[in-house]
Amino acid sequence: MAQILPPGLTASDFAKALAEFKAAVGEDWVFSSEEDLETYRDPYSLRWGDPDEYLASAAVAPDTVPQVQAIVRTANKYRIPLYPISTGKNLTYGAAAPTFTGSVVLDLKRMNRILKVDDKRNFALLEPGVSYFDLYRHIQDHNLNVWVDTPDPGWGSPIGNALDHGVGYTASPFRDHFGSHCGMEVVLPTGEVMRTGMGALPTADSWQDYRYGVGPYVDGLFSQANFGIVTKMGFWLYPRPETWFSASALVPRFADLQGLIEEVSYLEDSHLMTGQAIYSSPAGPAPGAAVSAGLTALMAHGWPTRDDIDTFIKKQGVPAWRVKLQFYGPEKTVRANWEYAQERIRKAIPGATFEEGELLRMPLTPEQQKTHHLVNFGIPNMAIYSMIERRESDRFNPPQGHVDFLCILPRSADAIFRAQKTLYDTQKSMGVPAVTTPFGGPITWYHRAFLIGAPTTANYRDDREKNKQSRAVFAAYIKNMAAAGFGEYRTNSAMQDLLVAQFSFNDHALLRFQERLKDAADPNGIISPGRYGIWPRHLRKEKK
Amino acid sequence: MAQILPPGLTASDFAKALAEFKAAVGEDWVFSSEEDLETYRDPYSLRWGDPDEYLASAAVAPDTVPQVQAIVRTANKYRIPLYPISTGKNLTYGAAAPTFTGSVVLDLKRMNRILKVDDKRNFALLEPGVSYFDLYRHIQDHNLNVWVDTPDPGWGSPIGNALDHGVGYTASPFRDHFGSHCGMEVVLPTGEVMRTGMGALPTADSWQDYRYGVGPYVDGLFSQANFGIVTKMGFWLYPRPETWFSASALVPRFADLQGLIEEVSYLEDSHLMTGQAIYSSPAGPAPGAAVSAGLTALMAHGWPTRDDIDTFIKKQGVPAWRVKLQFYGPEKTVRANWEYAQERIRKAIPGATFEEGELLRMPLTPEQQKTHHLVNFGIPNMAIYSMIERRESDRFNPPQGHVDFLCILPRSADAIFRAQKTLYDTQKSMGVPAVTTPFGGPITWYHRAFLIGAPTTANYRDDREKNKQSRAVFAAYIKNMAAAGFGEYRTNSAMQDLLVAQFSFNDHALLRFQERLKDAADPNGIISPGRYGIWPRHLRKEKK
Repeated sequence: MAQILPPGLTASDFAKALAEFKAAVGEDWVFSSEEDLETYRDPYSLRWGDPDEYLASAAVAPDTVPQVQAIVRTANKYRIPLYPISTGKNLTYGAAAPTFTGSVVLDLKRMNRILKVDDKRNFALLEPGVSYFDLYRHIQDHNLNVWVDTPDPGWGSPIGNALDHGVGYTASPFRDHFGSHCGMEVVLPTGEVMRTGMGALPTADSWQDYRYGVGPYVDGLFSQANFGIVTKMGFWLYPRPETWFSASALVPRFADLQGLIEEVSYLEDSHLMTGQAIYSSPAGPAPGAAVSAGLTALMAHGWPTRDDIDTFIKKQGVPAWRVKLQFYGPEKTVRANWEYAQERIRKAIPGATFEEGELLRMPLTPEQQKTHHLVNFGIPNMAIYSMIERRESDRFNPPQGHVDFLCILPRSADAIFRAQKTLYDTQKSMGVPAVTTPFGGPITWYHRAFLIGAPTTANYRDDREKNKQSRAVFAAYIKNMAAAGFGEYRTNSAMQDLLVAQFSFNDHALLRFQERLKDAADPNGIISPGRYGIWPRHLRKEKK
Repeated sequence: MAQILPPGLTASDFAKALAEFKAAVGEDWVFSSEEDLETYRDPYSLRWGDPDEYLASAAVAPDTVPQVQAIVRTANKYRIPLYPISTGKNLTYGAAAPTFTGSVVLDLKRMNRILKVDDKRNFALLEPGVSYFDLYRHIQDHNLNVWVDTPDPGWGSPIGNALDHGVGYTASPFRDHFGSHCGMEVVLPTGEVMRTGMGALPTADSWQDYRYGVGPYVDGLFSQANFGIVTKMGFWLYPRPETWFSASALVPRFADLQGLIEEVSYLEDSHLMTGQAIYSSPAGPAPGAAVSAGLTALMAHGWPTRDDIDTFIKKQGVPAWRVKLQFYGPEKTVRANWEYAQERIRKAIPGATFEEGELLRMPLTPEQQKTHHLVNFGIPNMAIYSMIERRESDRFNPPQGHVDFLCILPRSADAIFRAQKTLYDTQKSMGVPAVTTPFGGPITWYHRAFLIGAPTTANYRDDREKNKQSRAVFAAYIKNMAAAGFGEYRTNSAMQDLLVAQFSFNDHALLRFQERLKDAADPNGIISPGRYGIWPRHLRKEKK
């Protein structure tokens, strides 16, 4: 592969810039060989091997904030785009690859200090290279009484994940990782260090206790964006609960989903049920299982009517919907809350039935750890990859990687039904297997909104044509779902321009506002050009 | 009083601008007579009657978003500063008066439509002129199953209050009004209308369900700031709980406060106790009561040692600290949580005792409404003013108004003690009654941080000299507390420059960043110059 240069830069100027980077961070921490740069490709790229695959020109790994500043100064001098990553494990969303070819990846993996974990005020202050594993280990080693809320898998970074609006699996509101942050330190595109919230008050010890500080609250600008390089970030932690209790409610009719959602929403919005609600349909295919003959028949003539669905469910003699509730807290509280949940659901939905589940005392025993979804207990792990391995035989089998498509929905059964039909129609029109059925449950990471996704889109490192088709299908999902009122909460770097373009209210007023701010904050446009559709002035295209 | 003109504008140009405003909103809704402008003065001004009192040149009250846009266009044309207010009731923080003399107040009181209240997804979408009373009445009239979280008093606006980082009294997290918002519509300083979050996706019905949308999250820029005019805003609402239960824990020793705080923090951070924790000391003076002879003696030789305090408490034979806990939820849950709270506190703090309180079923009866603090039940009211009346005789008696001073603290007993001593020292050095004692409890509106305040600073409409002294005392509080690590979470308009100046990390990096963004968003500097220390380029002073 030919050497990749930052756009507009000569090889000799680039060599000078690399020399400056080396002077700043040491010879060993600037990477520009083909072999090294291979590790900064996105292994799940939808453009793998294509001329427009996003590729880095180099990578540089600082160890300290002053080193980050020095790198930013050099980048400004030579107009080199920098693409900051934390641990670079954001697979399905672009991983360690930049959003603009020729960028230098600013790899923050060495900045992995756990600066503070307080289990009285229940927070952590971290550097971006800290992984969920690191944080968990620190908590275990120091016998601290707090949990980590970790995504699947656990090798990523709390900072990187939060900045991408990532999510986890324990109690709400901790599952909302950006929403649980408190306080940031940022190296601005100008090279200056800024602290937000109470961090701006030099003597204050409340940086991780109160988030707003005084004046406009700027933290949001650094999420899904390119306004600076976050070098420290605080997180509110969940103090370790005494027990976890799960139990399920089942409702007989397809139309009962709406009532069920309303009752669960009451419990969630009141913080009586803080765990993730897992919706599923006993009438639909089990995860990973083959589609039944009955379901195939139901779907044979296109998207079924609600009457057909009711008949189908009745024939099977199973409840239409199940919701698994997960309660955290002392035993007497979780039992009281479950009793109350049953009362409410029984009263609201005739024919509702209930299944008691397990009550586990924290911490889990090693034996329990083997058989449970560890992320529900704040234990980082890599099991998700072995799950994918195990699913080799199923219909969503991703040969080499996968790209998730997940849209935000209001908490309503009608919205779910409409979203599923839109996905199904898209599959039909794009000539891919129409695998979406009306029986999928919404995902509930964010407890105030639902997520509905298409089956994982595979990418293919060994087949550029198939990858191209995946891109086309993905793009069709984005467009068709947006037309129906549904937008993704995050997306693969190859799709960010397209997704952002759908958020077009009043001639893209939001994006144009963000662009004005971007030009002011980053006059040379050096930080992550193109990330989430925000291009610096000199690279901006006309909006469609 | 001579006519006040926007700075740099001739009387004839101002007359032309007013004519344009009238053309936009109708003759009746532009106010420029002395009598009308009197209502846009801050009745609690710390500069009342002084040459530097903030005064408006006119006020204009639009009824619709296009009218707001027309006003903004005219303001840009003539370079007229606009100061948007919602209901203008932000007393103690500046009320309806601008932060820059000569501004035209943009009075949004006519935009008082309740656009949606959903008691299944539990949110409201409001215009800025809607008051807490309006929203409460709407909910009652439509028999909706949601609560309002209202501050004291209830004539203010949910939007105005949230944008000022205001707070309330029911369950956390709803007490954090800005933190409970979801989705905004903003008229930008350029006159364009923008919607944030899912509102940017034109067809989406999830504007009030998911807040981040896609790309950088800009909402924070519109709080305590001057980046635009919020014309719609969504709020997450608390579904009506079945009961409220209160009970108290008491601990014997002064030093037990730390353990008590830790246990209560556990309950709060776990969402087991979502109501406000009310800390107080039975050894200190009761609210509004005279200081005892014993306390006077304790404080006679300056700030007491911890040993002196212990002796003083022992002599009185009372517990050192009380915390009143407030639980919301079904009866069985709140009783289980209170049992658990007692177990934890008993185990952590030898000698802790407990007092059962009341359990009330919602909604309150009219009889119960007469005897309870209504804001704990989401019922807007004006009782706070009659409370101030009733306290005519006490030592904090505000003759004509008051200005609150409240600083953010970490949740720690040491921080409280240090903050109180700093306030006391300031009172001594400023020659005002040294009324702060070590027995005040922190305020807990934000459940992750404490607030500690100086006794209310009075302002004096009839005595400019005394008002000047109040300003000096207030300024001393700001400076001395900031030096000790404590900063206010909001402040009176006369003090915003000074407060923001304390948040000076790295040569005021945060403020300078905000200024850069301000210049980009509002090139003519027309929106609220000076609000929270952010001045447009042409009015900017050197930072100290």
